[in-house]
Amino acid sequence: MAVPAADNHRSLCPINLAVEIFGDRWTLLILRDLMFAGKRHFRELLHSDERIASNILADRLSMLVEQGILTRSGDPSHKQKAVYSLTEKGIRLLPVLAQIGIWSRSFLPVSEELGATAAELEAGGPALWQEWMAKLRTEHLGSPIKRPS
Amino acid sequence: MAVPAADNHRSLCPINLAVEIFGDRWTLLILRDLMFAGKRHFRELLHSDERIASNILADRLSMLVEQGILTRSGDPSHKQKAVYSLTEKGIRLLPVLAQIGIWSRSFLPVSEELGATAAELEAGGPALWQEWMAKLRTEHLGSPIKRPS
Repeated sequence: MAVPAADNHRSLCPINLAVEIFGDRWTLLILRDLMFAGKRHFRELLHSDERIASNILADRLSMLVEQGILTRSGDPSHKQKAVYSLTEKGIRLLPVLAQIGIWSRSFLPVSEELGATAAELEAGGPALWQEWMAKLRTEHLGSPIKRPS
Repeated sequence: MAVPAADNHRSLCPINLAVEIFGDRWTLLILRDLMFAGKRHFRELLHSDERIASNILADRLSMLVEQGILTRSGDPSHKQKAVYSLTEKGIRLLPVLAQIGIWSRSFLPVSEELGATAAELEAGGPALWQEWMAKLRTEHLGSPIKRPS
């Protein structure tokens, strides 16, 4: 339909390039679970309130790995045993999710329980975001991840 | 597929409620053009680098009005003459777009030309975002609104 601007991008606008990656109904939820719920395995990510379908989750995880937002380690033949880690590029999306959370809590019917993390991020502000990003670096970029034997 | 949490929402998580609104490949681009390019008319919004289709634009504008993010004024029988305005709820999405722009400039092949606004938002930081939001309130709401402290 559209004539690609370059490398099949619709345009090289920052907002456009971003929505080409996470402009869908699932990708930010997967990143949310990796960032704020400590989920690292396919099966954990599959069990969310929003009930993502297994094939959509697999598709989005592959895309995020391809985009350099996640890395995947573990036995390539055992999808269930793979461990997903955020890269620096992924961790740096935390302020985006924080701002979305702040906006939602102001204007959308967020539940107190599910909005608790967003409330904490809002109260703590950018200084807290940096702290949490540092923690994610330790957990996701730091020492090798222990895998179940 | 999923059992709705309430009011047909997949869950009442802040990230989920937000992507239920703008989790697609077009909505944030429309908001970008309203916020940063001064576009207010259907025909102006139709002419973007990403070449949005007319029916998709119409659909997303209706949805944004329904969600209270935009208002539409003008002759209801003349789609071309309608003027779209951001509401306070829409204006408060500016920090979300700013953070997305900052992230994209760090990690994606943003062009210098199309990344200029994001660069300005990054350099100016939250103080500039507040200033631009105040300007949008004047242009879109008609009078400056005090931000809740």
